[in-house]
Amino acid sequence: MTEQEIKPYYHKAQYYETDQMGIIHNSNYLRWFEECRTDYMDQIGLPYDAMEKAGIISVVLVSHCEYKHPLHYEETAEIRAEIVHFNGYKMTVGYIVKNAETGTVCATGYTQHGMLSKDLSKPVHLEKTFPLAYQILSDHCKTQFEKEG
Amino acid sequence: MTEQEIKPYYHKAQYYETDQMGIIHNSNYLRWFEECRTDYMDQIGLPYDAMEKAGIISVVLVSHCEYKHPLHYEETAEIRAEIVHFNGYKMTVGYIVKNAETGTVCATGYTQHGMLSKDLSKPVHLEKTFPLAYQILSDHCKTQFEKEG
Amino acid sequence: MTEQEIKPYYHKAQYYETDQMGIIHNSNYLRWFEECRTDYMDQIGLPYDAMEKAGIISVVLVSHCEYKHPLHYEETAEIRAEIVHFNGYKMTVGYIVKNAETGTVCATGYTQHGMLSKDLSKPVHLEKTFPLAYQILSDHCKTQFEKEG
Amino acid sequence: MTEQEIKPYYHKAQYYETDQMGIIHNSNYLRWFEECRTDYMDQIGLPYDAMEKAGIISVVLVSHCEYKHPLHYEETAEIRAEIVHFNGYKMTVGYIVKNAETGTVCATGYTQHGMLSKDLSKPVHLEKTFPLAYQILSDHCKTQFEKEG
Repeated sequence: MTEQEIKPYYHKAQYYETDQMGIIHNSNYLRWFEECRTDYMDQIGLPYDAMEKAGIISVVLVSHCEYKHPLHYEETAEIRAEIVHFNGYKMTVGYIVKNAETGTVCATGYTQHGMLSKDLSKPVHLEKTFPLAYQILSDHCKTQFEKEG
Repeated sequence: MTEQEIKPYYHKAQYYETDQMGIIHNSNYLRWFEECRTDYMDQIGLPYDAMEKAGIISVVLVSHCEYKHPLHYEETAEIRAEIVHFNGYKMTVGYIVKNAETGTVCATGYTQHGMLSKDLSKPVHLEKTFPLAYQILSDHCKTQFEKEG
Repeated sequence: MTEQEIKPYYHKAQYYETDQMGIIHNSNYLRWFEECRTDYMDQIGLPYDAMEKAGIISVVLVSHCEYKHPLHYEETAEIRAEIVHFNGYKMTVGYIVKNAETGTVCATGYTQHGMLSKDLSKPVHLEKTFPLAYQILSDHCKTQFEKEG
Repeated sequence: MTEQEIKPYYHKAQYYETDQMGIIHNSNYLRWFEECRTDYMDQIGLPYDAMEKAGIISVVLVSHCEYKHPLHYEETAEIRAEIVHFNGYKMTVGYIVKNAETGTVCATGYTQHGMLSKDLSKPVHLEKTFPLAYQILSDHCKTQFEKEG
């Protein structure tokens, strides 16, 4: 599956996600990034339970979000994820959040992830511990750089 | 420690807990009940890790909340918990949430809990599996009924 | 639209909704009730912004949830809502949450709502202030009782 | 009040903040940053309602968090905030989250804020619209740079 074939993730903004400013609270974007990332990993063939069965946990090392335009209750966010860096130990996923109706960019951001053994005790290199995952993530990251090249 | 000596729990309402109506969102009260319950269990000598070490997990079976007056950002909730029913297998904890400054009752509610083995596979009776916990919870429940009697 | 034609609401359980017991945290069910209720109101022709334009806010007076079986990360909840009581001032919505794949009932519950003027200062009766809403809610509640009758 | 006199903010990690990895979910750190920032603003004499009365809303433009060590249920976070940049229009607040018991640094991060008119329609410069706030924020930012100089 090429990046062109990956479908964006849609999240309808909920009432409980609003704050008294009348907009979606900033902390929810990290949760939406996670929803989108889960969906992206499913689409490229690396669902969470495949990682888990291989004894690997991906932990969040860094989160970053830039808020451009607010989203409101009942508006739908269209979120796209891309692997922007991967070296076997660590992966960085970039996100773009648009208002699905208007196309306005509402936020951009990224999360960096470290691959750990199931007990969270030590980093693992996917090339050795889960070669198929290494291949898939490398391919999708490569596609990314080729697109930019 | 008698019920008279148990201190209420205080929670300052946070911005991220508000919704676009300008009040604290209803779902947060279940989270505050949990905070208060944790604090109450600590005070009566049954902290979470004591239960866990005894191989017991307390799961929520029922939650109920009646919303009387809204709370707003930066207002402080004063929450009191009481064990209103306990039979060894199940425990019901009642709560009253007041505006700490004005004393207005903002919400009342209860949660019912079942005692399960650590793998969540079967109910346990505390009298057999953790007699000290059984004694403490019974005593505090008894106190409650005596107060009312 | 009859109750038979109303579609259930689906929510895929998210990682951030889990707790350290490895199940969906109890407080999220109130949030899912809200998501389902919003969807239900849209389906019967009373979206939130129609209420808002009519100057009416529906506030939660009571929430109640009974937890039967846990839901886990990546499982999908199928949630059905029904209006079980409505008298013009107050409305009670009942919910049933099933595991969409297995059909197991995971939770049941209800929320009671009061109709207030936009500034939250006083109760309003929908028959006078928003007759169309009164008609729609009465019809769907009636259907409900007829079904049971 | 000098930076030396500002007290850190304490947050006891709650059960509902854990995830199935058994640690505090990454999205909560943005919420704790907000709690700490509110407390910091109170301490330096710029509580939220003072800003609000002056017709100014501070919106989050950027959030960033680096996760160093996990925090667990019932552990207490000690969080310190500092104004690391302020130019009248925008303010950047830096945070350091430690395990209060062990002193281990668990996370660092920052949030950038823009000062907007109450209807969120346009940026405001605090020097003109709220000179006292401008003075306080400048002083605390200055202190910061002098400490480092």
